[in-house]
Amino acid sequence: MRTPALRWLDPPEGPAVALLDQTRLPAVEAVVTCADVPSLVDAIRRLVVRGAPMLGVAGAFGVALAACRGDDVAAAAAAIEGARPTAVNLGGGVRRALAAYQQARQDHDHDPERAAAAAVVAEARSIAAQDAAASAAMARRGLALVPPGARVLTHCNTGALVSGGEGTAFAVILAAHRAGRLAQLWIDETRPLLQGARLTAYEARKAGLPHAVLADSAAASLLAAGEVDIVLTGADRIAADGSVANKVGTYGLAVLARHHQVPFVVVAPVSTIDLATPDGAAIEVECRPPEEVTSLADVPVAPAGTAAYNPAFDVTPPALITAIVTERGIAQPVGAGTLRVLAAGSGRPDGPRAGIYVERWVP
Amino acid sequence: MRTPALRWLDPPEGPAVALLDQTRLPAVEAVVTCADVPSLVDAIRRLVVRGAPMLGVAGAFGVALAACRGDDVAAAAAAIEGARPTAVNLGGGVRRALAAYQQARQDHDHDPERAAAAAVVAEARSIAAQDAAASAAMARRGLALVPPGARVLTHCNTGALVSGGEGTAFAVILAAHRAGRLAQLWIDETRPLLQGARLTAYEARKAGLPHAVLADSAAASLLAAGEVDIVLTGADRIAADGSVANKVGTYGLAVLARHHQVPFVVVAPVSTIDLATPDGAAIEVECRPPEEVTSLADVPVAPAGTAAYNPAFDVTPPALITAIVTERGIAQPVGAGTLRVLAAGSGRPDGPRAGIYVERWVP
Repeated sequence: MRTPALRWLDPPEGPAVALLDQTRLPAVEAVVTCADVPSLVDAIRRLVVRGAPMLGVAGAFGVALAACRGDDVAAAAAAIEGARPTAVNLGGGVRRALAAYQQARQDHDHDPERAAAAAVVAEARSIAAQDAAASAAMARRGLALVPPGARVLTHCNTGALVSGGEGTAFAVILAAHRAGRLAQLWIDETRPLLQGARLTAYEARKAGLPHAVLADSAAASLLAAGEVDIVLTGADRIAADGSVANKVGTYGLAVLARHHQVPFVVVAPVSTIDLATPDGAAIEVECRPPEEVTSLADVPVAPAGTAAYNPAFDVTPPALITAIVTERGIAQPVGAGTLRVLAAGSGRPDGPRAGIYVERWVP
Repeated sequence: MRTPALRWLDPPEGPAVALLDQTRLPAVEAVVTCADVPSLVDAIRRLVVRGAPMLGVAGAFGVALAACRGDDVAAAAAAIEGARPTAVNLGGGVRRALAAYQQARQDHDHDPERAAAAAVVAEARSIAAQDAAASAAMARRGLALVPPGARVLTHCNTGALVSGGEGTAFAVILAAHRAGRLAQLWIDETRPLLQGARLTAYEARKAGLPHAVLADSAAASLLAAGEVDIVLTGADRIAADGSVANKVGTYGLAVLARHHQVPFVVVAPVSTIDLATPDGAAIEVECRPPEEVTSLADVPVAPAGTAAYNPAFDVTPPALITAIVTERGIAQPVGAGTLRVLAAGSGRPDGPRAGIYVERWVP
């Protein structure tokens, strides 16, 4: 991808966060430059920038922006964190950046604001770099689950647009392609905002993957026809019990995958695991405006004023998830025990430990 | 509805078939007048007129049009029947009309062409009238399956636009509303052509039903939230074993309904039952152009040239269907035995006969 999804601009261009406008892809590669926190909050709300890992990076750079501008950094952090409720990474990135800012202010007697601003920019860069490293590790680990000649079904968009690296599920798909194992990538269009048809098809084309898009509701017949070997998706928040909040439609796919005995695998960095959220019922699901459903490309479709049920996400219970791939290891079975080990970074996630995938893949 | 979905025009206006253009609803109520068979075939292909029962009516009037014009009626019948492969009603209506035409030609020594043309117009009118009567009977029978305070989920469009009467599943929904039993109608938008958001929302609004549309992929979370009491859909073709071909997405809904233990009920006239098609595997499923998925409202969404998997229908196996409501009775369990009785019109479909629903509704 020529234009990065997110770029930090130092003075004199900045301080600012430059975002590739994902609402206008694939038709136009336009950049939205956010020079203050309200414009970044607006960009996050409008999905100019989106995707769980990338929201963590954007949130951290938002705090950096406030610090460099001399704004009230705590207030800015709260505003950014509140822009969207479901992805845990947004709040995680914001809080890491805020902590770095506060620590640096305490540590520096001389010009603490300047030192703190520098520290928070460095912390945001570090989050982005860690995210890129996590992508590479998830790709490597996830590749072990993809059989030769695989026909992979994916939902929404999980590539370089949502990550400091090559993404989550899409990074695994790219690794499978490079390893010669990808026979076909099926891309759910992902209504209502069509992140699959617009963004994943765009990334698949750039990477030269064999691919086709489909209406979300056509996935069932693909599965019934035996045309799917594995379903790979990302995650916006993983509760402590292994429940996964992800783009609306993910849960239905998981039910269908189970019905057809096809493995359903979630790929997400450990920063997506939220041990403070006990289970699926505790996950707040963002409801978005009805117009996203009742209009298409700004043209009204349903009669004016038609009501719509438009949750941005749904929640898949752990019992339907074959495995969760993280940069630290693979949880299988998916549950509180395996996730806690991965999230804590303790234990021996690569070792022959019960509950952590090592070599035997049980689809 | 002020403008009927289909109207036969006698001379001097006709002979012609006047169709309410369903591709332009709800924005515009435009009428397409087909004065010859090729224009009717084109209208059927473009979905100006659509829906299984209405295709039977349109097919019959197409044969009448050929007869009135003095065309080669057998060739016209073949062309119309071939316009779309999946709905059995289209071929059924065409063949009934053709048989009436041929019989009348044999029976009349004096001006047999004129007599045959009159006979085929009368036969087409009779098919439309029978369809209206079937709608009323399906509504009455189906109502028994809808509990008070029902929240009904439906897919695609099954009302007056697809029928000589009030439709199939939608006729049951209207009956439930009139009986004070309908708390909420959930309408799948029904990608790719949005018959739910465009047409069912339009009919629901005209009828004053409490309703909301949703992206097809959001149905899973509605079911998980316990917000759906029954799923009601139509059918395009029912094989002898009870497999149901219907708008793509129906099969996935059936899997989801089963997973959530919600009744999944198909409403269709017996003309939709095709005993010559033994099972689901024998049903030919129409694949439509990729642009229906890769563009929205004629605006490209996916990158130019993106491939798409775009089946118009999918097939639901009988094991996932709680019951099939027809004008002659309700098949439960759904299978070859119960369907054969209904299709033949023999037996005592209203009587206490094994396999035919009478009073006990087992959801």
